[in-house]
Amino acid sequence: MKIYVMTLFPEMVEQGLRNSITGRAMEQGLLELKCVNIRDYTTDKHKKVDDYPYGGGAGMVMQAQPVYDCYQAIREEIGHDCPVIYMTPQGKTLKQSMAGGYAKEDTLILLCGHYEGIDERVLEEIVTDYISIGDYVLTGGELPAMVFVDCISRLVPGVLHNDQSAVGETFAEDLLEYPQYSRPEVWREKAVPPILMSGDHRRIHEYRLEQQIQRTKERRPDLWEKAKPQLREKLSNRLKKNLLGE
Amino acid sequence: MKIYVMTLFPEMVEQGLRNSITGRAMEQGLLELKCVNIRDYTTDKHKKVDDYPYGGGAGMVMQAQPVYDCYQAIREEIGHDCPVIYMTPQGKTLKQSMAGGYAKEDTLILLCGHYEGIDERVLEEIVTDYISIGDYVLTGGELPAMVFVDCISRLVPGVLHNDQSAVGETFAEDLLEYPQYSRPEVWREKAVPPILMSGDHRRIHEYRLEQQIQRTKERRPDLWEKAKPQLREKLSNRLKKNLLGE
Repeated sequence: MKIYVMTLFPEMVEQGLRNSITGRAMEQGLLELKCVNIRDYTTDKHKKVDDYPYGGGAGMVMQAQPVYDCYQAIREEIGHDCPVIYMTPQGKTLKQSMAGGYAKEDTLILLCGHYEGIDERVLEEIVTDYISIGDYVLTGGELPAMVFVDCISRLVPGVLHNDQSAVGETFAEDLLEYPQYSRPEVWREKAVPPILMSGDHRRIHEYRLEQQIQRTKERRPDLWEKAKPQLREKLSNRLKKNLLGE
Repeated sequence: MKIYVMTLFPEMVEQGLRNSITGRAMEQGLLELKCVNIRDYTTDKHKKVDDYPYGGGAGMVMQAQPVYDCYQAIREEIGHDCPVIYMTPQGKTLKQSMAGGYAKEDTLILLCGHYEGIDERVLEEIVTDYISIGDYVLTGGELPAMVFVDCISRLVPGVLHNDQSAVGETFAEDLLEYPQYSRPEVWREKAVPPILMSGDHRRIHEYRLEQQIQRTKERRPDLWEKAKPQLREKLSNRLKKNLLGE
């Protein structure tokens, strides 16, 4: 998978994704990241890429020309159309269920805004998808782009090792994850729940599911409302009685 | 404001926040960022910080000891209690309305997990707040910590210039932002909406509010439901009729 990131801060995005799983995916050739500096495409002799907003107001607006020419250069290199995703708080809120679809694309272009945003006319011209990572305001689209790349690249086949399966993770079934414990068995007088040492895989599975249900109910009642009908369908009658009290 | 980040990838966090507004806030001494490597605190002779999860399952779990000792060292340096925030998809979802409160703290500690999470016992011992940046799964807590720092540092007095006021931005009043336009007046045959060039500030304000309302209705009906009662209270009867049709 190849991802182009259009940004005024290419080094920030490159450095931020060089570590850990995304970094290894790049080394293995499973993920190719190309960060392109929008500023390289301005025709302004002072290399300016922004100007005051028409109608007044605080801050500066990124102008259409450099963004458009940067996109055109990338589009020419790719040779075919692909999703062009503008990271903006005005977009559709990213959810795990959206990530799988994007992970199947062979090429994506991400556009990062900065300052007070980008001239609307170039967005209308080139953007296919508007995505937000959450209901908060950030300095620019770079961190959201990094979050997006991290989220979807984990789902590209081969990126996670067999022992790091993305199945069963939080949101894979709209339940939060169960608590985790590792060695030592007793730490600062706190013991690992004995059931986890029982070797009884069925009971361990049930215990963990119970923990997931309890946490989701407590911390995210909104998710619990979504998860409940799915669970009811999947669980055996015995488990429905034990875990859902039905 | 001083923010400690406990992580296995301190360079990633440092580099990612060195740019733009957060970087400038650090240079000006308004924000101090200290990334502390949890691995430096392991007592394991091979510098290991993780182990298999009790009860089985995919992946590795970060052990309690290095996390706890890292926290203790930071706590000693600070000399008083402060919020310890664990970035986790199981936390409370970050919203702009939560950011202001954190921006008022003089010290924060952020804890970034990796792999399949952190031993539950050390979380119970040290963590005060669990925060998620959204309903998706990422490689680790580093990007969420960077998003959190970016979000709150913008609200620390002095970080944004006067002309970059955080007031009126998306989510400040549960409305999405209006479209922005900058020079030239006509670009690829697309003209800036003439009203923005009218110089009539009252009409421009109304036009923009209308755009905000329309966008929010279309793209985020959930936000619109929240925004509507607030707006109804604030708007004059004339605007209620014009903009809300009431």
